[in-house]
Amino acid sequence: MSEYWPKNELSKLLHLDFPIIQAPMAGVSTPELVTSICYAGGLGSLGAGYMSPYDIRKAIELIRMKSRKRFNINLYCYKPLENQTASMKAQGALNPYRRKLGLSDKIDIPELTFTFDDQLQIIIEEKVPIFSFCYGIPSKKQIEDLKNNGTILIGTATNIREVIELDKSHVDAIVLQGAEAGGHRGTFIGDWKDSMIGLMSLIPQAREATKLPLIAAGGIMNAKGITAALLLGAQGVQMGTAFLRCIESGVPNCYKEALTKFSSHTTTITSVYSGRPARVIQNSCLENLAELPIAPYPYQNMMMQDVRKKCEELSRLDFIPLYAGEGFPLISDRSALEIFYDLAQSTSLLFKELKQKN
Amino acid sequence: MSEYWPKNELSKLLHLDFPIIQAPMAGVSTPELVTSICYAGGLGSLGAGYMSPYDIRKAIELIRMKSRKRFNINLYCYKPLENQTASMKAQGALNPYRRKLGLSDKIDIPELTFTFDDQLQIIIEEKVPIFSFCYGIPSKKQIEDLKNNGTILIGTATNIREVIELDKSHVDAIVLQGAEAGGHRGTFIGDWKDSMIGLMSLIPQAREATKLPLIAAGGIMNAKGITAALLLGAQGVQMGTAFLRCIESGVPNCYKEALTKFSSHTTTITSVYSGRPARVIQNSCLENLAELPIAPYPYQNMMMQDVRKKCEELSRLDFIPLYAGEGFPLISDRSALEIFYDLAQSTSLLFKELKQKN
Repeated sequence: MSEYWPKNELSKLLHLDFPIIQAPMAGVSTPELVTSICYAGGLGSLGAGYMSPYDIRKAIELIRMKSRKRFNINLYCYKPLENQTASMKAQGALNPYRRKLGLSDKIDIPELTFTFDDQLQIIIEEKVPIFSFCYGIPSKKQIEDLKNNGTILIGTATNIREVIELDKSHVDAIVLQGAEAGGHRGTFIGDWKDSMIGLMSLIPQAREATKLPLIAAGGIMNAKGITAALLLGAQGVQMGTAFLRCIESGVPNCYKEALTKFSSHTTTITSVYSGRPARVIQNSCLENLAELPIAPYPYQNMMMQDVRKKCEELSRLDFIPLYAGEGFPLISDRSALEIFYDLAQSTSLLFKELKQKN
Repeated sequence: MSEYWPKNELSKLLHLDFPIIQAPMAGVSTPELVTSICYAGGLGSLGAGYMSPYDIRKAIELIRMKSRKRFNINLYCYKPLENQTASMKAQGALNPYRRKLGLSDKIDIPELTFTFDDQLQIIIEEKVPIFSFCYGIPSKKQIEDLKNNGTILIGTATNIREVIELDKSHVDAIVLQGAEAGGHRGTFIGDWKDSMIGLMSLIPQAREATKLPLIAAGGIMNAKGITAALLLGAQGVQMGTAFLRCIESGVPNCYKEALTKFSSHTTTITSVYSGRPARVIQNSCLENLAELPIAPYPYQNMMMQDVRKKCEELSRLDFIPLYAGEGFPLISDRSALEIFYDLAQSTSLLFKELKQKN
């Protein structure tokens, strides 16, 4: 089936039948999703950014029990900035909502119990085959340790300056996060607002800035998007939203339903759910939260935990961030395996047609 | 040369060798640019949104003197909203800058001397072959009059609701303005902030919403972009930034120089130059203007006229809006004819390669 796909470096580097990476999506991806995608010939990724070192190790063990294929673990590479005043204010502002939901008030600022360095230690100890990261770049020492293990490194860039920095840091490939992408913006150099670059512009410019394999992410939902990204100069694609509603996805049911129910809505960028700008589906619940004071990332995200969990229980969307890319109206609800096979096959057909057409 | 291009409805509809439209770009496009593009086998467009009915007629006469090919005139279809208080404040705030530039103070709000309806009357009287518009949709009567003349109508959409409205209004084709596009946002249904959709997402969704020919605009700079847009489901492309620095372009020299000098800068959206959100290149002059009070469009644009003109004379960038799409770092400074031929030829080669490769 892959005979019509252009053979490229990325497929070789990652040992893939098809250069399609399932996006990590912390809180959405599950070991089941990861192994389904790996089994189908793509690269499954576990978004472990919010997971404790202990949980990361358990998840890796589970993935290895289910499949012998190479997989990817993704972490958030950054140092949290504290702001006591903003955090206290943000915590307090949630209390009226907590009361309405039957939860107890909270006044303390949540404590971080592990750092990126702690999480990364597990990646190194477990000799994870592929490690992707965003929000920054690991230290020289960390990159050296990972490389000594034979781990393939994939960084994430949202602008050309980041592409250049990642290139210098000796990663093996770069995910280009286009402005279309759902979830958190990965920007770590400059203001995120200046780094909302559509893939149509970002891929050809990045192609001029580095020789590394490029993985296009954002708004890609089907064979047309995959083919277009490859033509623009990428060697592969990373797709998240396309798998958001699949059976193996870890999102709550009310979220899955909203993805179809709100298909005529547009998406927008907000920091209200986590303290960091992220693309979500516009809905009236979000409008109600617009005026909330916001704690720095990841404190805001941690403070929202209890209200989010409660809303999931009650199937209420109030505090559930509907992370999704701009292509979400084209979403499918089949299994990850079916979605993946369909993508691989329809892209093959498109390449075949292009070859034969005039 | 066009043998490898996919034959499509849009080329037939507009009688083009290549379905490449030079974007109207009010204040940038000149009759020379329009006729060069038409001569080369694409569609040249004159952005007449700011021109008086008299000037529009003169420009049409000039284009017809230079070429017998079909051409496109573009207008801004909207009713200006007045806000006396905001306008007075915005006018006053410019006076300190005027003094620094050796200009006299101004206190009055500029008066509009013609409307969209007046401008459109010329399009109807002159039986212009192709008429494109943005910011809204002409009235039923106006559309009827244009159609009775055999004028081909092209509307502009930035989101799916606008695509559906344009489809209902019986236009002949739709320009999809992706978030990547330079200059003014065309949004007329909903908030522009919710309509910043990358072409990678916008084209496939629009393709599902209408059967009309689609023209992709935003961030397309070369053969790769053209091919990708066509694969995503568009029948043609509209390119502005690619022609911004060409010999026939009407932008002042300091603007042309800035396009290369600032090639490592990113772009951003601002309303400060005209009262309407537009994509421009980030630069320190823009930062200085960030706090200015802003009059509604087009009043802000009219108030800025004198300071902009003066800055052009002095080759200062202070008040010159550097309108540009996200792809501007890939800009070329050759003639429009050379740029166009190169695009047409390299796209043909890319299609040919795709046909032969594997």
